[in-house]
Amino acid sequence: MINFPIKKTAQFVPINKQVTNSKARLGMLFEEMINASNQFYLAKGIAVIHKKPTPVKIVKVDYPSRQHARIVEAYYTVPSTTDYNGIYRGKYIDFEAKETSSTTSFSLRNIHEHQVRHLADITLQGGIGFLLVHFTSKQETYLLPYSILKEYWEGAKHGERKSIPYQVFVTRCTSVKHGFQPQVEYIKAIDEIYF
Amino acid sequence: MINFPIKKTAQFVPINKQVTNSKARLGMLFEEMINASNQFYLAKGIAVIHKKPTPVKIVKVDYPSRQHARIVEAYYTVPSTTDYNGIYRGKYIDFEAKETSSTTSFSLRNIHEHQVRHLADITLQGGIGFLLVHFTSKQETYLLPYSILKEYWEGAKHGERKSIPYQVFVTRCTSVKHGFQPQVEYIKAIDEIYF
Repeated sequence: MINFPIKKTAQFVPINKQVTNSKARLGMLFEEMINASNQFYLAKGIAVIHKKPTPVKIVKVDYPSRQHARIVEAYYTVPSTTDYNGIYRGKYIDFEAKETSSTTSFSLRNIHEHQVRHLADITLQGGIGFLLVHFTSKQETYLLPYSILKEYWEGAKHGERKSIPYQVFVTRCTSVKHGFQPQVEYIKAIDEIYF
Repeated sequence: MINFPIKKTAQFVPINKQVTNSKARLGMLFEEMINASNQFYLAKGIAVIHKKPTPVKIVKVDYPSRQHARIVEAYYTVPSTTDYNGIYRGKYIDFEAKETSSTTSFSLRNIHEHQVRHLADITLQGGIGFLLVHFTSKQETYLLPYSILKEYWEGAKHGERKSIPYQVFVTRCTSVKHGFQPQVEYIKAIDEIYF
């Protein structure tokens, strides 16, 4: 009986929508861990890094009362940058957090072309850009520097594989420890690579 | 007859809502000028600065088709940071754009406490934080460095005036030129103050 409401919902949801929803839930968990870590870094005066709001195109707004505006029609839009940015040790930090259920590789389909371009732009300006990639089944997270992402992104454009092998993360990227506070110790990984 | 639809809408809108809407429209214009300037700076490889999406709390989403999600209930939420951030000459840049129809002062009510705290946080980390204040009736824009904002913000807390006089902008802040491209030349003002 406990599962009844969930099952009831599920039977009205198309199959590919279920996948999306479950992916979204997993995504939310990793995202929440990063957000909590950012709060910790902020409270300790270590770094100021925030998640950008989800980009939404607002079409229609109602005013049920003078004080409150209710958005009644809006749509998700494709983000033009990455999800996270901020400052650490005087440096501009910019990254996207992604997770994959694959145990063998990270598909480049997880990233948008303009997000890669954005990371290129900020790297050119002297910023630190990367991806945090979480392998859910292994419970492992890696910091993938833009330089390595770029290598595989350009390779894929020239007909090479459209994913980054898990072994590349193990051998060439920096492992991000999971802890109690912060939950995702990615600042330590930044220290190792960029300072 | 041309104005009829506008008038019709107006008569159903409470007076203070009209003010809000007209302020929102003015705000949008200055915001659009900054966004266009940012596109110019980006295209020229001068700076990478983006506006963050409007923060919205999404409550209910419908799926009219498999491909499209339609948000049918959402609310505006108070932003926890400023509207704009990015990188210029290797430095982290962070600012809020505000405009006022006043000719004599800029009211501190235009800013949230946590936005001031955010500017304090990023300044501590070595970032460049400020407000771009546009006096609509004068068509003048000024870069108000966090240091001066802080002075008046703390003064207001201790019972002093809750606004910054226009003369302070003229005498102590840096004027931001308006041009064709970029429309708001705030990078030049950053150069003058911070480099």
